[in-house]
Amino acid sequence: MTITITAFERSPDGGKGLARDTRVRWALEEAGRPYEVRLVSFKAMKEPAHLALHPFGQIPTYEEGGLALFETGAIVFHIAERHGGLLPDDADARARAIMWMFAALNSVEPAILDLVIAKFVEGDKPWSKERLPLVVDRIRDRLRQLSARLGDADWLDGGFSAGDLMMVSVLLRLKPSGILGEFPSLAAYVARGEARPAYKRAFAAQLAVNTAG
Amino acid sequence: MTITITAFERSPDGGKGLARDTRVRWALEEAGRPYEVRLVSFKAMKEPAHLALHPFGQIPTYEEGGLALFETGAIVFHIAERHGGLLPDDADARARAIMWMFAALNSVEPAILDLVIAKFVEGDKPWSKERLPLVVDRIRDRLRQLSARLGDADWLDGGFSAGDLMMVSVLLRLKPSGILGEFPSLAAYVARGEARPAYKRAFAAQLAVNTAG
Repeated sequence: MTITITAFERSPDGGKGLARDTRVRWALEEAGRPYEVRLVSFKAMKEPAHLALHPFGQIPTYEEGGLALFETGAIVFHIAERHGGLLPDDADARARAIMWMFAALNSVEPAILDLVIAKFVEGDKPWSKERLPLVVDRIRDRLRQLSARLGDADWLDGGFSAGDLMMVSVLLRLKPSGILGEFPSLAAYVARGEARPAYKRAFAAQLAVNTAG
Repeated sequence: MTITITAFERSPDGGKGLARDTRVRWALEEAGRPYEVRLVSFKAMKEPAHLALHPFGQIPTYEEGGLALFETGAIVFHIAERHGGLLPDDADARARAIMWMFAALNSVEPAILDLVIAKFVEGDKPWSKERLPLVVDRIRDRLRQLSARLGDADWLDGGFSAGDLMMVSVLLRLKPSGILGEFPSLAAYVARGEARPAYKRAFAAQLAVNTAG
């Protein structure tokens, strides 16, 4: 069955790969699954046809036969569960890989989303300049803890997994800010993710959309 | 094998059930699994023994034989995957239930966490009063979308699932704020969750810890 995902017609990041469709593209590339992409404009995202697929009016979505999913974590998990290469076979190791997916999305990403709010959504507010250091310090706290857990390892728990795919994707959002550079082992971890051929293919595919004439 | 979870020795909410151990207790009660609880002080949470279990120094954790997990979403998913009552048998319906777990934690909870930051972490800052309405409006946007999707249904997708357990748990955090009351269908949805015998047992268990002399 054909897999169809949605992506921004034009990503707000101009093709830096930070839009969430890159995460799904990456998972599909790791799993070796071909897919089609339907591009959606900002306007169309808030219209009934797209809201029927994604109640929060965002991208990506995932359609395969009669199944329609939204929410990047759930889509990546669905791909990981059905195809090889993203979850270990051992039951306990598999549970820990899934744990890191949730940790990326619920323990690390919220602090990073707050930076997006502070910089862009509330960037013109009178408190913006004074508040930013507090937001950044909360991110540093998390990165310090994550860096301590990663230690000298290449990946969070044994071999590369969907947990690493998600954590690297979340940390990539920090690249423009420079904060990631304060934690060399995490910067190297992210670089290992970016060096994977599957990531490179996913990045190139989203870039092609965003630089098309 | 014995299941052991961790919980606050004294929850910051004084027993309102908003600490994340309640989510895990609820899942275990739905699954009909007995469990033991090890209480952890705020001080002990930041010490090496606990950080080895939970790199972000929080509760709950989950131990069963050789498996140790942190991250509530992952723990609830692990319980749901191994026992009946929390995930549908049909593959597509199961994927959608998991989708709602991720949606609760990554699309709904971050906006609500921001309210905690605005009220408590930054409550004494000069911008606190002026910023709060923006934070609340972002929550309202999400609740409006969620309410539209829920419609007249009892649960998010067919019967009660781990997705509802997580969404109800996330929405419960809004109860003290009064925002939930602006969306009667969501307030009724949360009340349906709270009315489940398994939730009541979970709530009573955490309350007993927090009101013990």
